[in-house]
Amino acid sequence: MQGIHHLGVAVDDLDEAIARYERLFGAELEGRETQDALGVEAASLRVGTGRVELLASLGPETPVGRFLAKRGPGMHHVAYEVEDLPQELSRLAGEGARLIDGAPRPGLFGMQVAFVHPEAVNGVLSELVTRG
Amino acid sequence: MQGIHHLGVAVDDLDEAIARYERLFGAELEGRETQDALGVEAASLRVGTGRVELLASLGPETPVGRFLAKRGPGMHHVAYEVEDLPQELSRLAGEGARLIDGAPRPGLFGMQVAFVHPEAVNGVLSELVTRG
Repeated sequence: MQGIHHLGVAVDDLDEAIARYERLFGAELEGRETQDALGVEAASLRVGTGRVELLASLGPETPVGRFLAKRGPGMHHVAYEVEDLPQELSRLAGEGARLIDGAPRPGLFGMQVAFVHPEAVNGVLSELVTRG
Repeated sequence: MQGIHHLGVAVDDLDEAIARYERLFGAELEGRETQDALGVEAASLRVGTGRVELLASLGPETPVGRFLAKRGPGMHHVAYEVEDLPQELSRLAGEGARLIDGAPRPGLFGMQVAFVHPEAVNGVLSELVTRG
């Protein structure tokens, strides 16, 4: 693992949340993207050297929509950047970790991503990402 | 804000969680500390350039104990590192952000810390930290 790539946060109102992070934490918007297939509209913000990914749902029957209905706005996942995503996934599978994505798939902002099930990581939905 | 200092994660069993992060993510334990006043036993782990703080409760009537009872293990807070903590707290108060700690207080691992209420940050318990 190279480090924490971003913290993913589910929000009700993307514009409001971007403005709030800008105002409170001096965040800088580096990208914004809607992915119909994932049912999500996302904003990538830099907070100093860190990164926060704000996620708004495109509807109640999407993963983020269901998360918001169940838990309300808040931290959704943490993403770790890796160099060789297929190799890391093989290694994790070999460790018996339950994977949501057994192979890399296209994620937000041009990244290749794979999610590890929260059951495997003490209740934390964990994502591995690498530049696409 | 200088960046994300750590992600705070509430766990049921600290030893088990440390071993899991070491095995799955190649994490390296950099510190371990019990703070009776906070009712917490914590481990600070490096994951590449990132940092995860694992938090176990010393009892059900502690902040982490109540969090675990209500939500189960999972992400608890995110901490941003700042240079001038009193100045950042004044600025946030001036923005009308609801603060849990109006002034810096001693936190884990020798840091000075202050928490911002999740209500002020879209449901995310956010901590500001600076080296003590």
